Amino acid sequence: MTFNDLIDRRGTNSSKWDKLEKLYGLSPDDGLAMWTADSDYSTAPCVIDAVRNAADHGVFGYSWMHPDYLNSIQWWMKNRHGWEIDSDWILTSQGLGNAIALCLDVWTSPGDGVVIFTPVYHEFAHKVKKSGRRVVECPLMRDGDGYGLDLEDAQSRLDGTEKMLLWCSPQNPSGRVWTPEELRAVAAFAERNDLILVSDEIHHDLVYPGTTFVPMDVAAPDARPWTVTLTAASKTFNIAGQRTGNMIIPDPDLRAAMRRRIQTLDYDPSALGVAMITAAYSTEGAAWVDEQIAHLDSNRKIFDAAIAEIPGLWSMPLQATYLAWIDFSGTGMDHAEFTRRLREDAKIATSPGPGFGAGGETFERFNLATQRGRVEEASKRLKHAFSDLQ
Amino acid sequence: MTFNDLIDRRGTNSSKWDKLEKLYGLSPDDGLAMWTADSDYSTAPCVIDAVRNAADHGVFGYSWMHPDYLNSIQWWMKNRHGWEIDSDWILTSQGLGNAIALCLDVWTSPGDGVVIFTPVYHEFAHKVKKSGRRVVECPLMRDGDGYGLDLEDAQSRLDGTEKMLLWCSPQNPSGRVWTPEELRAVAAFAERNDLILVSDEIHHDLVYPGTTFVPMDVAAPDARPWTVTLTAASKTFNIAGQRTGNMIIPDPDLRAAMRRRIQTLDYDPSALGVAMITAAYSTEGAAWVDEQIAHLDSNRKIFDAAIAEIPGLWSMPLQATYLAWIDFSGTGMDHAEFTRRLREDAKIATSPGPGFGAGGETFERFNLATQRGRVEEASKRLKHAFSDLQ
Ligand SMILES: Cc1ncc(COP(=O)(O)O)c(C=O)c1O
Ligand SMILES: Cc1ncc(COP(=O)(O)O)c(C=O)c1O
Repeated sequence: MTFNDLIDRRGTNSSKWDKLEKLYGLSPDDGLAMWTADSDYSTAPCVIDAVRNAADHGVFGYSWMHPDYLNSIQWWMKNRHGWEIDSDWILTSQGLGNAIALCLDVWTSPGDGVVIFTPVYHEFAHKVKKSGRRVVECPLMRDGDGYGLDLEDAQSRLDGTEKMLLWCSPQNPSGRVWTPEELRAVAAFAERNDLILVSDEIHHDLVYPGTTFVPMDVAAPDARPWTVTLTAASKTFNIAGQRTGNMIIPDPDLRAAMRRRIQTLDYDPSALGVAMITAAYSTEGAAWVDEQIAHLDSNRKIFDAAIAEIPGLWSMPLQATYLAWIDFSGTGMDHAEFTRRLREDAKIATSPGPGFGAGGETFERFNLATQRGRVEEASKRLKHAFSDLQ
Repeated sequence: MTFNDLIDRRGTNSSKWDKLEKLYGLSPDDGLAMWTADSDYSTAPCVIDAVRNAADHGVFGYSWMHPDYLNSIQWWMKNRHGWEIDSDWILTSQGLGNAIALCLDVWTSPGDGVVIFTPVYHEFAHKVKKSGRRVVECPLMRDGDGYGLDLEDAQSRLDGTEKMLLWCSPQNPSGRVWTPEELRAVAAFAERNDLILVSDEIHHDLVYPGTTFVPMDVAAPDARPWTVTLTAASKTFNIAGQRTGNMIIPDPDLRAAMRRRIQTLDYDPSALGVAMITAAYSTEGAAWVDEQIAHLDSNRKIFDAAIAEIPGLWSMPLQATYLAWIDFSGTGMDHAEFTRRLREDAKIATSPGPGFGAGGETFERFNLATQRGRVEEASKRLKHAFSDLQ
């Protein structure tokens, strides 16, 4: 299988494809799903082999977070991210949405403020609200071709009732990779305001040539007493459906608090999730990820070139992630009209920018983790849907 | 694959086999694992096919509790248990340990009493304690060849601070299947004492010929406003490692409270867990379960015959489950001496009776969900280890 072999995900209980009709009113016959952040190509052969081996064995009994699993995570962080971790810093959750919810549960109380820098992954605000905490939105500032931090402005938005900062690095939806200086500034901001810093690094592996991702714990090791890092193989290896993620917590007190909560809730990762991640975090897995990055790099170039040809649309240059962040403010259209054309004319399902919070009003997020043919098709449809702008 | 083909689970990250040395001091070379409640044979071919199909597809992205899944559960309950449920009564947890923990979390507070009838699945008491609630132990009474309920005695042990009753049906460790009359009495006891009744029916499918299992909701439909039923395919199909279980909650208010909690914690079942259960709850799955019951029935007969030959040992006649509950009080040995012989002489790992609470002091639980050859080997070793009693 290459990244360009067409795979039909319709009828496979894929949220992204099989909810097109219900959520977007798009027909499965010609709708293009570019919303939910998973990939349309198959995962690494070594991961598939792990699943096949499990099927061959046929026994799906009790397992645990065995040393091979923990060692593979440790190996990956060191080899791919220059990050030395102890294997007992690792706690496993049911994916990172669940990890965020657990962090809110353990370290905040109803009514507490939770700081987010927007536009950001829409679920940050959802999870804060669902748990009865308060969203404290601090807008990122536009900085050249991307977003930057305005921590003075952010400071002015806090009133001392905040308890946590949900931080996204690399950034979804903008694909921004933060510099070590920026990470240290964020860590210091959290310290100054007595915030638990939850650094969601789920997109850390999909970084384009020319940019280096640095984990928060590498940039700001002094911040350990108030920092929790979230990682997962789910975006990198397209195994989000397996619901397995990691919380890496160097600080013993923070770790003990989270471990207690997990044990009380009697959470265990699934044996298959553990097996898939163990297989993924390997030299074979790493080689596959490198190929994937090259594939995504070519996808985004094709897509950006198409966007550049449509007057009034602008694609924020990605440093990481397969999520294109498209600004349509130059078209003069409002969000309703822009998305009407996306849905009715181009028949593309995307993630609405306003859902990502302040700053996302004139944007739309497109998922490029698909076959090149689909990116080309999307490009063609967009040019057609907005041909009157030419 | 038949139930008797030897499968070597050593080195497969099986908790039951690969922790023999660490937890029981038994060598992997000749230790026999008869503790953790999973099976040593492979699951139904239809479940394995579901895993293979997932591997062939190779894409493990986001999925959801799709209608096929909910319908398969509904079908299973109706066809195997004569239980009509609505598909929207079904909520999915990360296995039933997690479901119990969530019930404690939603409907009790630290310090509240939680009633259990002992001896019972050791994790009931553990989970109550881990969550800071209080265990209120009500011993079952010996009744002929099994256990019965003494609800008057139980009533005398309550002081009004109890909020929940954790009920096990069929009963682990005794293999008792409760009658509709007993179930109604338990439901009324819960109502009288204002207890949320959590009916853990995980062992409902493995019931021996001659006995009929009746779900709590069928026996006592009037108890819906205070009843939550837990079910899973994990014991039935040996897929406990996949961490997927169900809470079936007919009452809209109870269901809304649990749904809120699950959504706040951002729990989703894994796509593979959902696929495996959907495949399991089918006519093919049902036929396989019938074969499994015949296999287990012959295992328990072999084992019971061996136990009957050892003076002082007695096996409680099983109506359900693959868990043999062996009383050694007739040997005059204390628990330490009995288990010393089990471990050092017979080299068998079992679940210590005292862990199941009051009434379990002179018992040991043996897991018979294995190949006939292993049951025969265990029988031989036991006769040898206790040959001085002849
Ligand atoms: C930043 C970020 N965190 C978390 C998640 C969700 O992770 P999971 O699927 O493990 O719940 C996503 C998915 O898009 C994401 O972009
Ligand atoms: C009565 C009972 N409930 C729950 C469980 C555990 O279920 P799970 O593996 O889904 O957490 C068991 C396992 O032995 C059990 O016997």
